[in-house]
Parts: sequence; structure tokens; C-alpha cells
Amino acid sequence: MTTVNERLAWRYATKKYDATKSVPAEKLERIVEAVRLAPTSSGLQPFELLVVTNPEIRAKIRTVAWDQAQVTDCSHLLVFAAWDDITPDRVNMMFDLTNEVRGFKNEGWENYRQMLLGIVADRGTEANYQAAARQAYIGLGAALIAAAFEEVDATPMEGFDPAAVDEILGLKSRNLRSVVMLPLGYRAAEGDWLVNLKKVRRSRENFVTEVS
Amino acid sequence: MTTVNERLAWRYATKKYDATKSVPAEKLERIVEAVRLAPTSSGLQPFELLVVTNPEIRAKIRTVAWDQAQVTDCSHLLVFAAWDDITPDRVNMMFDLTNEVRGFKNEGWENYRQMLLGIVADRGTEANYQAAARQAYIGLGAALIAAAFEEVDATPMEGFDPAAVDEILGLKSRNLRSVVMLPLGYRAAEGDWLVNLKKVRRSRENFVTEVS
Repeated sequence: MTTVNERLAWRYATKKYDATKSVPAEKLERIVEAVRLAPTSSGLQPFELLVVTNPEIRAKIRTVAWDQAQVTDCSHLLVFAAWDDITPDRVNMMFDLTNEVRGFKNEGWENYRQMLLGIVADRGTEANYQAAARQAYIGLGAALIAAAFEEVDATPMEGFDPAAVDEILGLKSRNLRSVVMLPLGYRAAEGDWLVNLKKVRRSRENFVTEVS
Repeated sequence: MTTVNERLAWRYATKKYDATKSVPAEKLERIVEAVRLAPTSSGLQPFELLVVTNPEIRAKIRTVAWDQAQVTDCSHLLVFAAWDDITPDRVNMMFDLTNEVRGFKNEGWENYRQMLLGIVADRGTEANYQAAARQAYIGLGAALIAAAFEEVDATPMEGFDPAAVDEILGLKSRNLRSVVMLPLGYRAAEGDWLVNLKKVRRSRENFVTEVS
């Protein structure tokens, strides 16, 4: 059986893509679907996913992403954009959708809605955005693993100017903020300085504590 | 083939665990290993993982986690604890480890170390902590998917008082802050109100934007 850890060992932060190779639509859809299915706190899914293929837009993004060539050479550029705030409208949208999908209203769920509306109102915009951004990283984790199962290379990327990417993609008017990007494609191994280097992780004993 | 999306569809935020069932050691190890192998920004792995089985400690945590029974009924309680700051010592520890594992020093890598040391110094403690917490959520995503592949149930849980959990687990003196927990175990389906309800996610069209 293909295992999660075998796929995690296979993947690496691809430094050079083969710009001539495209990720097939069905593979891309399975990766996107993994992000959509990923769980989030209270089920809010407080982020959106952009799939950028437009070459001019990717060229613009590259200029605000330390000129990293993966932005333009990859097959598809995923951009994870978190809600800039967790507003009552957004909370209600998800709770209403839940009632609609499940076909009933439940008192416990409605009480939870009111409690959550209180929490996000008290917490304020910045803390709500930070909470939303964290959820986007669950989606990033799902995308990374799904890509590895598809034998699609990927490069988690925080090295960009989020405000500039928001401007290029028109995210501000949609009340979204870019938090992390993920180029997807196929490695050009001959030009990739990282591909043959050992993966570095802290040892289990320096990473895990058992409280037993 | 077992697919990531089939496993994501299978999993749900388990509300009731069968307290008599334990996750076998080899399954737990594979889940822990998925967290350890998960990628993080600049490879820093700016968090640690606690595996809590001690019943007294779990009972204490439950009192500061809205009395959620999963904390005590699960087989193993994972606690993701982020670095409270990204200090020069911590950055250097990971860069030194990289040189040690790969067996050479590289000028480009050493320049990157200096740049990163500058970034984290400028950014300050709180922003560094927030950045570290986000990385922990990549690990959470990996753990969730790995657990689902092992047919182990899991409950991502933010509903707790982080400062109180830090106190119970002695995290402050280790310069760590708890950010999210993940009970692992086996569902007690007969007592779980969520197990038979439909999974709710926004439609692809309300979640994904194609920029082509």
C-alpha cells in the first residue's frame, strides 16, 4: 500500500519546474478537492483557494515573490487566501449551509452559532484573521499530501509580499488576504539544487514528548 | 487504491470515543511520523508534539477544555505546541542540523540563515509566534490524514484555554505555547451525534476561483 509517510518522504520543496509539463485536470481536481474536504475550526472553511494559470498574472506575482521562478514555471499556482475577518455574515452563511445540507435545524447547533458569533465579535478583526489563516494551513497540508499521492511536485511558499499579491489578484475587495502559495507541477531535476539533498527533520526525541 | 479524498470523506470530528479501545503503537507511530515529516517554512519545524496518555493530566486538561469528553475518552491526546518565539538559537539549531545531516556548508544556505535571522529579529515575538502556530497546522493536517489512513478517528480541537493547558503541561518553561489538540482513538458510534450527519463543505464554485 502507498502510505502517507512514503509520500511525505518523496515530496520536497521543488526549486525548479519543467515549464513544459502540465498537471492533468483530473489530478488537479483531486488536489483541489482535498483542500475543499479538509476540516476547519467549527467547519467555517474561513479561506478560499485560487488556481492561477494566467501567465501575465503569474509574471506579476513573481515580481513580488522574490523573483522565484516556480511561480511562473509551475503548471498551476495555488493561492490560499484567508478571510480578512470572521464576520457574522460569514458565520451565518456556514451555519445556514449546514442546516440546508442536513435538512434540519437543531437547538444545540443554533446555541453554538450564537456562542461563536459572540466569540468572533469579542475577538476582533486581527485575531479573527489570524485564526482564519491557521485554518488555511490545514488546507495547505492536505494539498501537499494529495499532490504527493498524485506524484505531482509542489512548493509551499511564504516568500512573497501578501499585500502586493492581494492587489494583483483583487483580493481586498473580496475581503480576503493571501497567506501562502503552492506552485504545482513537475520537477526539472537537472536544474534543482535541492532534489538530491537529504530531507532534514529533528529527531523524534527532539520533537515528541510523551506524557504518560 | 485508497485515495486521500476517500479518507478525508471518511473522517469526521469524532464526538464520542470508545474509551476501552487503544490505538496500536505502530499506528500511533506512523501518525506521529507524518507530523514529523510534514514540511514547514524554511524547514524550521517551529513546534513540538506532545502525546498525552496520563489519565490525571488528561482529566486536568478536560477541565480547561469545555469538559469535552474526547480529551479523557480518546486513546492518545496529541497536543501541538508552537515555539513562543523564533529566536536566533532556534534558527541556528535548525540550520546547524541541516549542515550536519547534509554533511556540508553552503554559502547560499548561510546567506539565507543570515537573512532569516534578520527577518525574525525585525518581526518580533508575537508575529514569530503566529508564524510558528501556522506551521503547526500543517502538522495537524498531516496527522488528520495519516490517522484517516490508519482508520483511526480524530478530533481537531481548538476549544480549550491555551494558557491553562500550557500550565498543566509545563510548556511555558519550555518556551512553547499550545495551539491545537487532536484526540485519537476509536469512535463510539452509538453515542456520537455527528457520526451519521452529512459532511458540510462549501461547493467548489463558492470555494475555488480560477484565474486563467
